[in-house]
Amino acid sequence: MKNYIGLIGLAVMGQNLALNIARNGFSVSVYNRTPERTKEFIEKRVKEEKIDPYYDLKSFVESLEKPRKIILMVKAGQPVDEMIQELLPYLEPGDLIIDGGNSYFRDTSRRIRELKDKGILYLGMGVSGGEYGALHGPSLMPGGTKEAYKLVEEMLLKIAAKTEDGPCCTYVGDDSAGHFVKMVHNGIEYAIMELIAEIYDIMRKVLNMPSEEIGKVFESWNNGELNSFLMEISYKIMRVKDEETGKPLVELILDKAEQKGTGKWTAQTALDLGIPTPTLNMAVEARIISHFKDLRVELSKTLPVSKESISLNREEILKDLEKALLFGVFISFSQGLWLIDEASKVLNYNIDLSEVLRIWKGGCIIRAKILNFLREIIKENPQNANLLASEKTVNFLKDKIESVKKISDIGKRSGISLLCLNSALDYYFALATENLPANLIQAQRDFFGAHTYERIDKEGIFHTEWEKLE
Amino acid sequence: MKNYIGLIGLAVMGQNLALNIARNGFSVSVYNRTPERTKEFIEKRVKEEKIDPYYDLKSFVESLEKPRKIILMVKAGQPVDEMIQELLPYLEPGDLIIDGGNSYFRDTSRRIRELKDKGILYLGMGVSGGEYGALHGPSLMPGGTKEAYKLVEEMLLKIAAKTEDGPCCTYVGDDSAGHFVKMVHNGIEYAIMELIAEIYDIMRKVLNMPSEEIGKVFESWNNGELNSFLMEISYKIMRVKDEETGKPLVELILDKAEQKGTGKWTAQTALDLGIPTPTLNMAVEARIISHFKDLRVELSKTLPVSKESISLNREEILKDLEKALLFGVFISFSQGLWLIDEASKVLNYNIDLSEVLRIWKGGCIIRAKILNFLREIIKENPQNANLLASEKTVNFLKDKIESVKKISDIGKRSGISLLCLNSALDYYFALATENLPANLIQAQRDFFGAHTYERIDKEGIFHTEWEKLE
Repeated sequence: MKNYIGLIGLAVMGQNLALNIARNGFSVSVYNRTPERTKEFIEKRVKEEKIDPYYDLKSFVESLEKPRKIILMVKAGQPVDEMIQELLPYLEPGDLIIDGGNSYFRDTSRRIRELKDKGILYLGMGVSGGEYGALHGPSLMPGGTKEAYKLVEEMLLKIAAKTEDGPCCTYVGDDSAGHFVKMVHNGIEYAIMELIAEIYDIMRKVLNMPSEEIGKVFESWNNGELNSFLMEISYKIMRVKDEETGKPLVELILDKAEQKGTGKWTAQTALDLGIPTPTLNMAVEARIISHFKDLRVELSKTLPVSKESISLNREEILKDLEKALLFGVFISFSQGLWLIDEASKVLNYNIDLSEVLRIWKGGCIIRAKILNFLREIIKENPQNANLLASEKTVNFLKDKIESVKKISDIGKRSGISLLCLNSALDYYFALATENLPANLIQAQRDFFGAHTYERIDKEGIFHTEWEKLE
Repeated sequence: MKNYIGLIGLAVMGQNLALNIARNGFSVSVYNRTPERTKEFIEKRVKEEKIDPYYDLKSFVESLEKPRKIILMVKAGQPVDEMIQELLPYLEPGDLIIDGGNSYFRDTSRRIRELKDKGILYLGMGVSGGEYGALHGPSLMPGGTKEAYKLVEEMLLKIAAKTEDGPCCTYVGDDSAGHFVKMVHNGIEYAIMELIAEIYDIMRKVLNMPSEEIGKVFESWNNGELNSFLMEISYKIMRVKDEETGKPLVELILDKAEQKGTGKWTAQTALDLGIPTPTLNMAVEARIISHFKDLRVELSKTLPVSKESISLNREEILKDLEKALLFGVFISFSQGLWLIDEASKVLNYNIDLSEVLRIWKGGCIIRAKILNFLREIIKENPQNANLLASEKTVNFLKDKIESVKKISDIGKRSGISLLCLNSALDYYFALATENLPANLIQAQRDFFGAHTYERIDKEGIFHTEWEKLE
């Protein structure tokens, strides 16, 4: 009897996904480039699950029912192309490859195109939820042809996280829609993480709160509108003690934030598509700056930063911090959804934003209570991709703007960098502004480069000899 | 008798550069894809200059002395590749092509590589100064092999702008160094233009100053530390009246800022190289947001922005605005030079930052008095690419930070978006911070993705089971 599906790549995510699939009643063949890893997995983690190890690709593929369905859980980039090339000799038209890694969406588009010529179906599938999600139910963002999706729909719906709105999986859209949406998911994730970090910085440096107390406040926020996975792990992190020193472990961690590329791709892609995502961009900038630890230590000794004393009303500031964080989170989603919507139009993905918000409700890193509210806004008017044109938005934001201003002010007076929060406010201000000063920029461009300009009072393209040049 | 050099592409920049070259005593053959443009140029603009028109590439190339030297002034991208392909049949090993357009540096690297195999020399040359500069002396940023540079050095030094520190041209560095430096030049240009626009927005909206008055203040600033080409054209713009209505023309220009890609490339490249350029990025974001005019008009009617009344001490605010602008300009250069320095290391360009600053002193769009000061800082310590590690910097910035804070505060209380200025301050704060909150981000990443972290108290890579997951 042949197995239902094959899975290649047995790092932790791959292992956990294989277990999840098998526990949901689908038999799995597994393969890993280094056989030791496969053996270890089978010996240590597989119990009654129907998971069979294979040590060469030919017998791995032959063990699968037709049309074959193979999930790749290998490192994004070159390794995916290599594995596809190795698999091709054993595949037949109608077989399906699913890339479950964090592949760059343009790579996924290329692979879909190349494999289509050979009759091989392909899904680019975002998988979010980390190790835990992969095992217990991730959020799944598959994109490609509907035909390809239908082949594995039943299984995907079963292994995905569940919420009151159904399994956290849907057919996201055509072509590389799945990996695009996963990329932006991560872009939003970067922004929310940096926003929480900025709020944390004020709590520890301005309010002088010890980590445990910060954890308690985070926990109380997690019981309110800020309820979310990232808030939950943040409060849990705050109470973990280092075993050796007994100090809060978070205080012993080096402040150099790493990244794997998806946040950067989000920022770069938004620039290409011409959609403003300053807050998602600033989250990447903040990680980049954090990297220059030695430089910062040196500069902190010489660069003048006057720290003003701030009259502390702790309870009030905490309320403002909570509201400011909510504002920042909302704006991060505003930018990310706008970007997805534009990609959906330009790249013909045909994405339903309300469905994207639904499948983010469980399993993934940015799952949050606020998604219900965002979905209401989108359902009210699916054209309102950036969420800003809604009475609901106005009511939600209006009591938060003053709080953001206050926190921004505290940051400035304390010399604390709030790249994400400040960019969120400036993004909001700019979009609420009928007349931006870009008229001067257009005049300058026309002055030195004859780039022409439009006018507010009549149609046409104009050029002025601002100064007789010769 | 053969001509010294050939020039292809007779848009305004090409025409002016040809005239500049000929007026400096070098004979020029010109060619343009559409012959009408060539005829028009010869009839209307060429007088006693030794400029000969050609209407087919073969005779154009044959009219040049060997080794042939040909400058391309065609649109960046595909047109450059096409023109190179068309030229190749007529060229011989040792001939030189100079691309004087705003080509993407990676394209330039590729072209240098491809042409090297054929024995053709290639220079990627940034040309800044707009139409006026091309005619009267641009800033020239040639990059490629030194051998290629030597072929045209004499001519380039003659046609370039002149300052007390010599002609605004130097051998910038290997490979695509010239186009890289020009790209960053434009990235800085975007940032300074947006900073001026933000300052202008406060003058008109908060201080309620009419354009003429703003122009007078800009003019007075241009007589001080802010002396620069962009300040100069800004004050000149303010006094130009619309012929029909008599109103200041700038007030009739539509506030949608266009872009041609170099600012965007700068932001994207900095993300790739891992150098923080938040202020250069935000300048691009600001242009993107300005583009959504219809949306802004709509949202301005509904989104709440409480505008507080601000107690006006006009003279004081004007002083703060001047200092804030100086701060922003300094930070824009800090980010841009840092990016160039990193590229110089990673891409083996071998760039001398002090020379870059020198050739930007004249001819180009970002020429400014402050470049002398920046050069002093770099000369003091060439390793200090971002300019921040210097006593001179401390003295320069220390009286400006309070002004930036005040202006930032005014922006917030007036609902005016200051994306560039605020990002400059946050960049400064972050680099002056020994302990950023990135430790929390690392903890979060390790919690949900087992991405590991480093510690401040001991060497090594660590992972914590933050919560028993199964």
